[in-house]
Amino acid sequence: MNTHIDLNPLVGILMGSDSDWEVMKEAGKVLREFDIPFEMTVTSAHRTPERTHAYATSAAERGVRVLIVGAGAAAHLAGVVAAISDLPVIGVPLAATELQGMDALLSTVQMPGGIPVATMAIGKAGAKNGALFAVRILALQEDAIRKKMILYKAKMANEVDAKHAALQTRVQDL
Amino acid sequence: MNTHIDLNPLVGILMGSDSDWEVMKEAGKVLREFDIPFEMTVTSAHRTPERTHAYATSAAERGVRVLIVGAGAAAHLAGVVAAISDLPVIGVPLAATELQGMDALLSTVQMPGGIPVATMAIGKAGAKNGALFAVRILALQEDAIRKKMILYKAKMANEVDAKHAALQTRVQDL
Amino acid sequence: MNTHIDLNPLVGILMGSDSDWEVMKEAGKVLREFDIPFEMTVTSAHRTPERTHAYATSAAERGVRVLIVGAGAAAHLAGVVAAISDLPVIGVPLAATELQGMDALLSTVQMPGGIPVATMAIGKAGAKNGALFAVRILALQEDAIRKKMILYKAKMANEVDAKHAALQTRVQDL
Amino acid sequence: MNTHIDLNPLVGILMGSDSDWEVMKEAGKVLREFDIPFEMTVTSAHRTPERTHAYATSAAERGVRVLIVGAGAAAHLAGVVAAISDLPVIGVPLAATELQGMDALLSTVQMPGGIPVATMAIGKAGAKNGALFAVRILALQEDAIRKKMILYKAKMANEVDAKHAALQTRVQDL
Amino acid sequence: MNTHIDLNPLVGILMGSDSDWEVMKEAGKVLREFDIPFEMTVTSAHRTPERTHAYATSAAERGVRVLIVGAGAAAHLAGVVAAISDLPVIGVPLAATELQGMDALLSTVQMPGGIPVATMAIGKAGAKNGALFAVRILALQEDAIRKKMILYKAKMANEVDAKHAALQTRVQDL
Amino acid sequence: MNTHIDLNPLVGILMGSDSDWEVMKEAGKVLREFDIPFEMTVTSAHRTPERTHAYATSAAERGVRVLIVGAGAAAHLAGVVAAISDLPVIGVPLAATELQGMDALLSTVQMPGGIPVATMAIGKAGAKNGALFAVRILALQEDAIRKKMILYKAKMANEVDAKHAALQTRVQDL
Amino acid sequence: MNTHIDLNPLVGILMGSDSDWEVMKEAGKVLREFDIPFEMTVTSAHRTPERTHAYATSAAERGVRVLIVGAGAAAHLAGVVAAISDLPVIGVPLAATELQGMDALLSTVQMPGGIPVATMAIGKAGAKNGALFAVRILALQEDAIRKKMILYKAKMANEVDAKHAALQTRVQDL
Amino acid sequence: MNTHIDLNPLVGILMGSDSDWEVMKEAGKVLREFDIPFEMTVTSAHRTPERTHAYATSAAERGVRVLIVGAGAAAHLAGVVAAISDLPVIGVPLAATELQGMDALLSTVQMPGGIPVATMAIGKAGAKNGALFAVRILALQEDAIRKKMILYKAKMANEVDAKHAALQTRVQDL
Repeated sequence: MNTHIDLNPLVGILMGSDSDWEVMKEAGKVLREFDIPFEMTVTSAHRTPERTHAYATSAAERGVRVLIVGAGAAAHLAGVVAAISDLPVIGVPLAATELQGMDALLSTVQMPGGIPVATMAIGKAGAKNGALFAVRILALQEDAIRKKMILYKAKMANEVDAKHAALQTRVQDL
Repeated sequence: MNTHIDLNPLVGILMGSDSDWEVMKEAGKVLREFDIPFEMTVTSAHRTPERTHAYATSAAERGVRVLIVGAGAAAHLAGVVAAISDLPVIGVPLAATELQGMDALLSTVQMPGGIPVATMAIGKAGAKNGALFAVRILALQEDAIRKKMILYKAKMANEVDAKHAALQTRVQDL
Repeated sequence: MNTHIDLNPLVGILMGSDSDWEVMKEAGKVLREFDIPFEMTVTSAHRTPERTHAYATSAAERGVRVLIVGAGAAAHLAGVVAAISDLPVIGVPLAATELQGMDALLSTVQMPGGIPVATMAIGKAGAKNGALFAVRILALQEDAIRKKMILYKAKMANEVDAKHAALQTRVQDL
Repeated sequence: MNTHIDLNPLVGILMGSDSDWEVMKEAGKVLREFDIPFEMTVTSAHRTPERTHAYATSAAERGVRVLIVGAGAAAHLAGVVAAISDLPVIGVPLAATELQGMDALLSTVQMPGGIPVATMAIGKAGAKNGALFAVRILALQEDAIRKKMILYKAKMANEVDAKHAALQTRVQDL
Repeated sequence: MNTHIDLNPLVGILMGSDSDWEVMKEAGKVLREFDIPFEMTVTSAHRTPERTHAYATSAAERGVRVLIVGAGAAAHLAGVVAAISDLPVIGVPLAATELQGMDALLSTVQMPGGIPVATMAIGKAGAKNGALFAVRILALQEDAIRKKMILYKAKMANEVDAKHAALQTRVQDL
Repeated sequence: MNTHIDLNPLVGILMGSDSDWEVMKEAGKVLREFDIPFEMTVTSAHRTPERTHAYATSAAERGVRVLIVGAGAAAHLAGVVAAISDLPVIGVPLAATELQGMDALLSTVQMPGGIPVATMAIGKAGAKNGALFAVRILALQEDAIRKKMILYKAKMANEVDAKHAALQTRVQDL
Repeated sequence: MNTHIDLNPLVGILMGSDSDWEVMKEAGKVLREFDIPFEMTVTSAHRTPERTHAYATSAAERGVRVLIVGAGAAAHLAGVVAAISDLPVIGVPLAATELQGMDALLSTVQMPGGIPVATMAIGKAGAKNGALFAVRILALQEDAIRKKMILYKAKMANEVDAKHAALQTRVQDL
Repeated sequence: MNTHIDLNPLVGILMGSDSDWEVMKEAGKVLREFDIPFEMTVTSAHRTPERTHAYATSAAERGVRVLIVGAGAAAHLAGVVAAISDLPVIGVPLAATELQGMDALLSTVQMPGGIPVATMAIGKAGAKNGALFAVRILALQEDAIRKKMILYKAKMANEVDAKHAALQTRVQDL
């Protein structure tokens, strides 16, 4: 069991419903890899507006520095949080309806001038990249994180190389 | 000058920006036609979350019975208001961006289960229909409004008849 | 067995085909929860225009106060009913074709000025919200319904809280 | 002035609003070219449902053989007419809203199984082709029309040839 | 076995690939129900342009009166056939790619002015309606077909009534 | 006047209508810059199928090596030409309808397996790139063209540099 | 004239073409308001790949902490820069083609897992919000910026209040 | 086992991830059928920018004449390669996200003027056609390839004929 959770989290991950867990845990896994403490919170812009308001107003003073917010359908959560909090808010649109996330994407990214939400790709790639973008922000202040990020990118590149090598056999057999 | 404004408004019309006036005034014009008192309020889900919250919590107790909310882009205003207020909330998506209102439409209509927003068409037709839908709701309680609505529908039908008659000349000249 | 069906229904739920049942029953379940009597009717704008016309003209005089209409594809049913009846008509677009409900959404929401249809989200969320919107309308007249709605919202909020709590274990194990 | 209008029209052109005239007159012009008698009618599926019903039930017995129906937004007119009449109904989706006719296209073409609407392109090309499709239907019965159609196609081909020739100068000057 | 196939077919059903069979057979089944002789042909606008040309030029003189053409992806087959033949051509867009038939729909319906294709809904509903539209065309000339169509519509209406009745039990048990 | 037109053209530019000239001349201008002889032809897949067939079957034997085909709406021309000719066919989708070229894009790019069309961007960028892609193909065989292409790319890069320099003044004045 | 440009810029604004200036200057104006030094650079992912590479590799070591990248069409610039640089990259999709920025939006936001781009709204709202998001990142380290941001949000709220007040006259005159 | 791989490949097939193999192998299979030597490479525009750069700069000098590049999501790989290399670059958009390839299609096809990418259909049809387009390019120089292509097209036509024949039984049994 990992016990450093909630002890001075630097990143807050929010999601509108626990059905978003399978996607949003990708963000948590990346932060684990970087040893960045985080917390995960279920709160809905529509069903628990007070809870959302309370979270957004208190996050910064508890030391949270970046928020990653996943929501589907008419995804208002990221925008609502960004309206209240002054922290950088990263939005992850989720494919929760028949429209395959196009609704959540437009609801998240098309924020009017004044209140920005940094929008990532729909679904798991977006959750993962939301965490990696938080890493880039935190790396501005902490050199140790920056160094881990360089290693992370190198590992990704090596994996591509390995996949290329492994593919050659299949090509021969085509 | 019309002076009955704000005296016991039955309908509250909200818009996210005064640039929405040209569209949302269509709602006001319909309500004038029905002699239904209303108020119009500029408030933003993102730029003035407190003002929006204050309006949504107080509208019902001031006697407002229906809310009509116009918003463009990542249109969160109707959903945010519906999350707080218990009144019927009618959403009018506005074409305020390069995406011609498709963003506002999906942000308004794709509300998750639990908090309904009654969505109308994009733009002026939606603003007009938002008011006519408020009329239908109010007509359930007040028979005078129902009778005016019957006349209104008859007038619409007559206008179509007149347009048909006027068209015949142009057809002859084709 | 529930026997209060059809005794003075306050809400009429219509659907274009019995294949819409799995979605539209969500509306019925919500109304059951609020003890609001309702009826459910299969009628098609295209295959049974007379039946649809007969229903729409008679609903109000039988005491029905709100109509919830589900339809897929080129979903005309809600608009056709709203053209005849003076009641508030709530439209639920269904994902019945390859276009995943985008066709039904646009066919339902883009009503021209004059005849409003209050459009909900595509599919089950829309059916559920259609009923909850009917509840908001009926609550304007009946305080008992308004009180149940307040409890309903509180229950929803509590469920989110419980889901949040349950999630924390999974977060620890990430 | 053309006086053969309404004397035994073979084609009925319907439109939901007189604002559709500029587009739908293209259909009339083609029929004029073929000397096919037609009538043009303004009637709305939503604002004048009785008038629409009356037209659709009587058209065939008055000798009309094909209906061309133009409508924009949530374009229900063609479907409503096709549900009542047994005649072939051709639908022309019009770009009357911010969605540029995509709403009218899907509302017209995505008819459920049982009631067909023969959908043409959005706008003027669709109005013109609606008439040409009516011509193809009528040509099945009347050889004179078929012969005119052959001439019409030859004229179109000649125009393309002429345009090609005229273009060569501009190419030289490029 | 049905032996009247190919003996003086009145309707020609074309499809671009035998993988379209599952959808296009819906058209055949409707024509069987009306005892209208038809033929079914696999030919591709792109892979067998000569075969397609030969079919389109000869269909009318063999007595075929209406063509129903199903195609997916960049669905050119209906347009190519309509450019050559003078018969009424009905296009059925098929969902054969990742874009779920939106590509085939636009490729079929957006024909430029001059060459009409009567477009039906995507997929099975479109195939069925393509046949029913052919029936409406043929009914103009043959009263026996018109009478069968009236029975067919009555049967559809009865089915809706039966489904409505069957649904009531499920509503009671909700 | 440029007189080398039609003398042994290496590239054939086709367009469905002379209204496509303003866009398709961008392709011609690029080829002029590279001194590559070309011809421009107006021919329609639908209005002049024979002319299109004749062009496609004869182009290669006249020495043409690449075809650039612009078309709008249900853009079938490139696919029809590629079905007949064995040359590389480059398709340029044009924004000729209310759908802003999305129809032409899907009609051009979603070709079924077997007959490829190399699709470029919608409109002028696509026409220009169509010519530049033809240049890349021809450069495989002729080194002089390859050398010009290197200069062309260098010129483009220099223009970006110059624009960057020019922008700095405006930035200072912001 | 503003002379602090390029002296230790904290933010780098990139754009693919000087035609993007009218939109991207909105980002510069916001940064001016916050007295945050920045630089603006024209560089293309496709026309000047070396220049882009050089910029992306050197920005961090010159002290730049956040990059804001505007690009239209198949907008690759933000992704290409984010692949090379370790800084937070904010992408602003521009409406530079017939598709009104939907192409640039998807090309920017749908980054695969591993390399994040923080995507803003299409066009001017996105450029403005891109700068405001950079402000939120920089405010994490510099309290003076955070305080200015609080004032900025208060000013926005006041503007909404003022617009609301100004609207009341127009409402009276409705 | 096929051993001529990598010995003087004429075509380079690139893909952004080994998960693209199932689609991109369709391109390899076609090239095998034409006995055209090719190589397949996994490289990512974002995760391995240097590797991609190295490949793109060296391909031509190693004798590669055409590049086929498959990528999904915000598919930048084809554009990045085309910016560096002077070879003809064919792009195959892959359906790798919730948006079913529409993101990859627009990211690939909407290249700005100056750097062309020849875009094929989404998915397997596109991979197959990418190879067939490479064949058409190579056939310009090598008559043996052109002759094989004629046989290939004849085989495709024969297959359609065979499918047509096989279908007739099923039609009889309808």
